[in-house]
Amino acid sequence: MFIEGKNAIRQAIEAKVTINKIYVDKNYQGRKDEIINLAAQNKIKFEFVPRVFLDKKSKTGHHQGYIADSVDFEYCQVDDILQKARKLGQKPFIVLLDGIEDPHNFGAIIRSCECAGVHGIIIPKNRAVQVNETVIRTSTGAISNMLIARVTNLKDAINTLKENDVWVYACEAGGDMVYSKKLNQGEAIIIGSEGFGVKKSLLNYVDGVISLPMMGKVNSLNASVACGVMVFEILRQRQES
Amino acid sequence: MFIEGKNAIRQAIEAKVTINKIYVDKNYQGRKDEIINLAAQNKIKFEFVPRVFLDKKSKTGHHQGYIADSVDFEYCQVDDILQKARKLGQKPFIVLLDGIEDPHNFGAIIRSCECAGVHGIIIPKNRAVQVNETVIRTSTGAISNMLIARVTNLKDAINTLKENDVWVYACEAGGDMVYSKKLNQGEAIIIGSEGFGVKKSLLNYVDGVISLPMMGKVNSLNASVACGVMVFEILRQRQES
Repeated sequence: MFIEGKNAIRQAIEAKVTINKIYVDKNYQGRKDEIINLAAQNKIKFEFVPRVFLDKKSKTGHHQGYIADSVDFEYCQVDDILQKARKLGQKPFIVLLDGIEDPHNFGAIIRSCECAGVHGIIIPKNRAVQVNETVIRTSTGAISNMLIARVTNLKDAINTLKENDVWVYACEAGGDMVYSKKLNQGEAIIIGSEGFGVKKSLLNYVDGVISLPMMGKVNSLNASVACGVMVFEILRQRQES
Repeated sequence: MFIEGKNAIRQAIEAKVTINKIYVDKNYQGRKDEIINLAAQNKIKFEFVPRVFLDKKSKTGHHQGYIADSVDFEYCQVDDILQKARKLGQKPFIVLLDGIEDPHNFGAIIRSCECAGVHGIIIPKNRAVQVNETVIRTSTGAISNMLIARVTNLKDAINTLKENDVWVYACEAGGDMVYSKKLNQGEAIIIGSEGFGVKKSLLNYVDGVISLPMMGKVNSLNASVACGVMVFEILRQRQES
């Protein structure tokens, strides 16, 4: 898997992602360069290559002169996420994505979750965007510090969470106002897909539906914005408690 | 200016945007169709055209079979935004964008602001994305209900706001925690550009800098997510007061 762009590669190195080699624009040879320094310090091989080589290799079109060839992203298990929370001595704080399709949304969600202190993200194996080059780049490196579990069935994951005393809420219109809920008990929230929200079939398994106030005529937010607002509201409540 | 896609066109019609004509995929002829019905009810001309005609006209690549030819977007004055708040009997709630470049971010910001009850958005004339087809489409129609003022100089706009008893805060790292501030007094917030944040030269003119807690290693959110989290925190405080 390729990691593209300066920020994403720096974060990957710092997070000890295994990188086979970093390809660097040969025009950068000889100059003081943060990525080359970091690579040298961490004993990661690097190679100067022509710009066109990078342009050809790039899948995002935004390599900024740097592409790292790293091992494939390693998904974790739901249990690893619960264990991370336990190790930190914190109540679980988890996000489930029900069919996000846009890699930019997925990348922005990973970034927001990392900033808000979410312990891990759970995605379905099918009918949803998986971790790819665009996701990695859009996450601006956050993916290197985020556990992502990939499951066959979100329903089973919800049940596992509930067995572990995690409250599971779907984020959808028409539910309880998020500000009226006590969201510092150990929570997982489900963010629905861009077009269709959270699947009706999942709503039977959740502990409740939580909503944001909608003051305008458009009654829904972009999926990554909705996730950002929700995880920061939970963080606010966790910090207050 | 062209408005593309079903949601954006429906919202534009409902918001009484002047539309010269709507081009509809001729394959939709004869079927019950929401947009055709709405156009007929509102006495807007529509014309069935081949799909390739729409593909050629489309600037976003996502027309979904509908493109509306509307009058150009009309920017307003800063004073119109203040007047809107006054008419509603509400304290001003305004967002300034300091050099947002990505039309998807701008569109998502308009959508979030409309949902949170923001009275208007102020953008600079230069070195920032202006309202274009992609912005309109990404706003999913929210732009039809949003006042947007375009100014030569953000500094002057800030001063005008302050003269009108509006508190102006820059959203940046290293400021006061947003949760510790009283944000229901009539506020404007400044969201910085994707790469550089709020310009240092503006920071001299604001009443303060407000920040979100950052719990991870990545220390900033996507610009549209940051704006979403901030406007919903202000909405929460406005509703509580």
